[in-house]
Amino acid sequence: MTSTLVLLRHGESTWNAENLFTGWVDVPLSEKGEREAQRGGELLREAGALPDVLHTSLLRRAISTANIALDGADRHWIPVRRDWRLNERHYGALQGKNKKQTLEAYGEEQFMLWRRSYDTPPPEIELGDEFSQDADPRYADLGSDLPRTECLKDVVARLLPYWESAIVPDLEAGRTVLVAAHGNSLRALVKHLDGISDDDIAGLNIPTGIPLRYDLDADFKPTNPGGTYLDPQAAEQAAAAVANQGR
Amino acid sequence: MTSTLVLLRHGESTWNAENLFTGWVDVPLSEKGEREAQRGGELLREAGALPDVLHTSLLRRAISTANIALDGADRHWIPVRRDWRLNERHYGALQGKNKKQTLEAYGEEQFMLWRRSYDTPPPEIELGDEFSQDADPRYADLGSDLPRTECLKDVVARLLPYWESAIVPDLEAGRTVLVAAHGNSLRALVKHLDGISDDDIAGLNIPTGIPLRYDLDADFKPTNPGGTYLDPQAAEQAAAAVANQGR
Repeated sequence: MTSTLVLLRHGESTWNAENLFTGWVDVPLSEKGEREAQRGGELLREAGALPDVLHTSLLRRAISTANIALDGADRHWIPVRRDWRLNERHYGALQGKNKKQTLEAYGEEQFMLWRRSYDTPPPEIELGDEFSQDADPRYADLGSDLPRTECLKDVVARLLPYWESAIVPDLEAGRTVLVAAHGNSLRALVKHLDGISDDDIAGLNIPTGIPLRYDLDADFKPTNPGGTYLDPQAAEQAAAAVANQGR
Repeated sequence: MTSTLVLLRHGESTWNAENLFTGWVDVPLSEKGEREAQRGGELLREAGALPDVLHTSLLRRAISTANIALDGADRHWIPVRRDWRLNERHYGALQGKNKKQTLEAYGEEQFMLWRRSYDTPPPEIELGDEFSQDADPRYADLGSDLPRTECLKDVVARLLPYWESAIVPDLEAGRTVLVAAHGNSLRALVKHLDGISDDDIAGLNIPTGIPLRYDLDADFKPTNPGGTYLDPQAAEQAAAAVANQGR
């Protein structure tokens, strides 16, 4: 038996536009982000990649992206499952900080370590910090599982139990599954699906708003390794733009 | 143990604005309807009536109303359950017809019988009619349960199993439940909650966009019979406007 998994990274948020570290801070999509979500819905419809069930994080920018895209694809009515394990990486004490100022304050090496190393998390956020989630009712059940910072390795560790217990059963039931989530929770999932090494995952970037389809075999391994972007040209352009940022 | 149930009827749809019978036809909210949903969310927040779980129909106008209201109340992240049993009454062969033309074609008595009698459904819609749902994938599992017309009695009969099997368990778990649905599916629920007779339910109209809170006792009977509108003045004005329509 084969099954279909579609990954959708949310579009631009208001804090992306302002160049702030976001993590678990629950900011809305910008107008550009809403347009990206609409385009994502059109791509789902045009490709006939129509989800039977939606999984989202608990964060507004992923939830709104899914709502807009599914409404556009006429699939607003499908069942919805939400879980904190699909949230963006917790950015620790960097949440709410300006990226440029952080780069200037800590230097390029430390900055890139926090952004891209697999197992070095930023410093923990203080309890009670205005950008901490320790008083947020949506995480009340987490108790001591509530992260105060995360590296990508931590995201993989908390994501995989949800993959196994919630997403795989939907795939097993023959459903086309849409996961609407974030840059790092989707990188964690792709790392698992494609068997990417801890070192190589640093170089992988998933573009926003372009659905990424995986066709999975009976063991939930991709028959199309790396997945298939529903707009390959736009995905290529986005990848080139990221590569050029470093130059 | 007590629990809290909040009912929210969707705001104006594009077909309300055009005076067409809608039923199960999946039309979007009008801009006025979107504003009503925003106001509904503000009322939830101001009253502290914050839902822990959402139940919606499979129709866009209820789903969008819930999405907009919950986003405004900062509760976009709660679990979602959807079911066709919360859908609007199926309007049979009248779906897609203009209300004024139907009134002129069939006369006042027949028209009001279809609109308000408890147990007289309109004629069945033809299979394959452009406003029938027999080819709609969201109802593929219903088989012969798919309605081709309904009176309010039919809505009560298909709604109550969902109330018992899906909504009551959430209330039993101590959750504040939001039901975002339609004029007639909510009338069916209120009929059950308040023990309204088959005759008296004809006179009951639930205004759009104003959350209606029920405080329920351990037997899921209201301790505030009739419920409490979160904006009582607006609810009163809406009721007066309906009463004046007949004059």
